[in-house]
Amino acid sequence: MGGAIAMALRPLNPARLLACDIDRDTVAAALADGVIDEGFTNAVNLLGRCDVVFLCLNPSTLLRFMETNMAAFKPGALITDIAGVKGGIVTVMETSLRDDLDYIPGHPMAGSEKGGYAQAKRCNFTGKNYILTPLARNKPENLEYLKDIIYRMGFGRITETTAAEHDRKIAFTSQLCHVIAAALIDCEADTAITRFGGGSFEDLTRIAMLNAPMWTELFIENRAELLRRIEQFEGSLDALKELITAGEGAALEKRLAAVRDRRGAMRG
Amino acid sequence: MGGAIAMALRPLNPARLLACDIDRDTVAAALADGVIDEGFTNAVNLLGRCDVVFLCLNPSTLLRFMETNMAAFKPGALITDIAGVKGGIVTVMETSLRDDLDYIPGHPMAGSEKGGYAQAKRCNFTGKNYILTPLARNKPENLEYLKDIIYRMGFGRITETTAAEHDRKIAFTSQLCHVIAAALIDCEADTAITRFGGGSFEDLTRIAMLNAPMWTELFIENRAELLRRIEQFEGSLDALKELITAGEGAALEKRLAAVRDRRGAMRG
Repeated sequence: MGGAIAMALRPLNPARLLACDIDRDTVAAALADGVIDEGFTNAVNLLGRCDVVFLCLNPSTLLRFMETNMAAFKPGALITDIAGVKGGIVTVMETSLRDDLDYIPGHPMAGSEKGGYAQAKRCNFTGKNYILTPLARNKPENLEYLKDIIYRMGFGRITETTAAEHDRKIAFTSQLCHVIAAALIDCEADTAITRFGGGSFEDLTRIAMLNAPMWTELFIENRAELLRRIEQFEGSLDALKELITAGEGAALEKRLAAVRDRRGAMRG
Repeated sequence: MGGAIAMALRPLNPARLLACDIDRDTVAAALADGVIDEGFTNAVNLLGRCDVVFLCLNPSTLLRFMETNMAAFKPGALITDIAGVKGGIVTVMETSLRDDLDYIPGHPMAGSEKGGYAQAKRCNFTGKNYILTPLARNKPENLEYLKDIIYRMGFGRITETTAAEHDRKIAFTSQLCHVIAAALIDCEADTAITRFGGGSFEDLTRIAMLNAPMWTELFIENRAELLRRIEQFEGSLDALKELITAGEGAALEKRLAAVRDRRGAMRG
């Protein structure tokens, strides 16, 4: 995602685009591609020069990074992140952020199951959702500035909400969907099953190609909301199962028609 | 699907392409588009002239149609269908088909949640799967002829299997996936939830726009296999839920990595 964000920032002609990755080859590739102006493998060497910082790290790594590097940020810097769970980060930033820094938590809803810099070009931001969970202390002009950058990167819709609301919604649209995709693959050992695929199975299991360490962290970090969502889903699944078991055609058809209507009423 | 099949047959230059639909407007549209040579709203008027027949009907309608029109088919005709559950159809055809007719049950894995003739152009067969569940009595030359047509329509892979095996596999790749998509929408009333969508939710619920009467019929027709699949899926979902509940990061990560490996080993 860091690579994809750099690629989306490049055409905006920033004064200077600096990037850091612990992997030397990634930095070299981004430099060779002209995606970044300068590359680093250690953040302390560039943070003091950056007016705007996108932190592209898993939640726990992000918190460690902020603790380690708090003193290195340029005075007055605008900082944002892309982590998929926001509650823990917002709690920490509300209390322990340096007074002069402006940290605006964010979540671009445009990931891909294919990670790494080499796949960054596939990451298309056009028309995608972006969630921001601003802190009470954020400067309005910084928030407007960040939103302007996000729209210019191609995103189609920004939703501002609280970290708690973000985590409740994302538990459904993202984490529950990943758990379901994983369970679908987990329960079928036959790898030749794809001979019987017609699109549905492929769609439902694309995201089963998951980054195991990252999703483990997101599932456990947001476990209260995720477990509530799994149980809601199981409730609906059980209701459908009962109608099928009982052969209740009329009731089942009515419920499926209601599903179709509701999905149709959802935008996107 | 009838419209999509006619469109795929058109470039193969059949001697004459005849079609029947109970909806007069659909027939008129297909004629106006040059997709068919002659159109009918009552099958008895064309069956006697057809050497090859694609029956595009739900399972129960198909069985009624065969019973009603058995005498109308041209002697020696090759008949196939596209129904999503095959056990019941094969059982009936094995016993009650006219001696001179050759019925080869089929299932093109290329449907769309958007039905109707107007959407038929969106139905792309290129590279898609096609399942055939031949009867013991099928003539080898007819089977080869049908397979040739299927490949020339653009399909990428034909799998020949038994009706029982088809119904077991399809319960997983198709019906279970539709039940899951329906349950996901069933359990969330907030239609603005798509503001928080990033692709996963959209992928998992595309097929929730389902044709309620058809899927009701398919679910109930294949209910024994489908219920077995729902229970397998619930078993895996419960296992993941327990790991998340217990915060068993290492075990969860291992299981998700195994899911990723298995999905990667699946073709397509």
